[in-house]
Amino acid sequence: MGMPVKSMKDLFLVTLRDIYYAEKQIYKSLPKMARNATSPELKQAFEKHREETDKQIDRIESVFEQFGASPRALRCEAIDGMLAEAKEIMDETVDEDVCDAGLIASGQTVEHYEIARYGTLIAWAELLGKKESSALLRETLEEEKRTDRLLSELAMGQINEKAAA
Amino acid sequence: MGMPVKSMKDLFLVTLRDIYYAEKQIYKSLPKMARNATSPELKQAFEKHREETDKQIDRIESVFEQFGASPRALRCEAIDGMLAEAKEIMDETVDEDVCDAGLIASGQTVEHYEIARYGTLIAWAELLGKKESSALLRETLEEEKRTDRLLSELAMGQINEKAAA
Repeated sequence: MGMPVKSMKDLFLVTLRDIYYAEKQIYKSLPKMARNATSPELKQAFEKHREETDKQIDRIESVFEQFGASPRALRCEAIDGMLAEAKEIMDETVDEDVCDAGLIASGQTVEHYEIARYGTLIAWAELLGKKESSALLRETLEEEKRTDRLLSELAMGQINEKAAA
Repeated sequence: MGMPVKSMKDLFLVTLRDIYYAEKQIYKSLPKMARNATSPELKQAFEKHREETDKQIDRIESVFEQFGASPRALRCEAIDGMLAEAKEIMDETVDEDVCDAGLIASGQTVEHYEIARYGTLIAWAELLGKKESSALLRETLEEEKRTDRLLSELAMGQINEKAAA
């Protein structure tokens, strides 16, 4: 983590750097995922989530500021692994509809990682008396949960059935 | 993924191999997490989850069998990243209570990864007409959700406050 963690504030900042890195990598990966999606609804979901991600990055930068720290990204191997897996699915899945199902699955691992991270950060921000930060992070958490639900709906709606046909 | 993915069954098996690898790594990592936890409740939660993980591995092996495939693990970089991060927290966090808070946070990223994976596998097993498999995977999903909730309760109950004191 590049520094000894001595306090909850340190742990909060290390975790914020982790999700800052993650969001930036997600932002970079979403265009390829949108391009490789066959279902127009899935394509649109990835495009919309990219716009949200852009705002989520801004919110993280505001939280850094509220903590009197400069925005700094800390490499998160977990998200790198999830995005590498999404890339493998795009590269190795022959059938378009099966690829869509796989992209949704990868997208949902990413959303769940973020849901866990933001849930933690919100609890810690409150504990540290940073109400403004926790409110900002909560906006993002709600977006991540909505995206996860939307991906489930797309899968159950049509994509999985097409993929299994 | 080591093979071209041509069908939903292929995609299901690749994803099953991913979570099979993940569960085995989690099983190996939990003793160190339990040893490093200071709160007796957290220690116990990790120990209990290790026993559950052992049964979850057996269930995955049964699902492989139901699909006529041999159990095979496929390296999952996402889980390796999450477990490496848990290790870093144990190595670099000076304060015991802050370490507990960090271990809970890492544990919750792992649980959320599993929740996403099992949710997907259940939907795909049903789609592929494998009711028995989906029922087995659902048992595991419920355990992962319970573990995630328990970790939240431990954090909110006492651990976070101690860590921030």
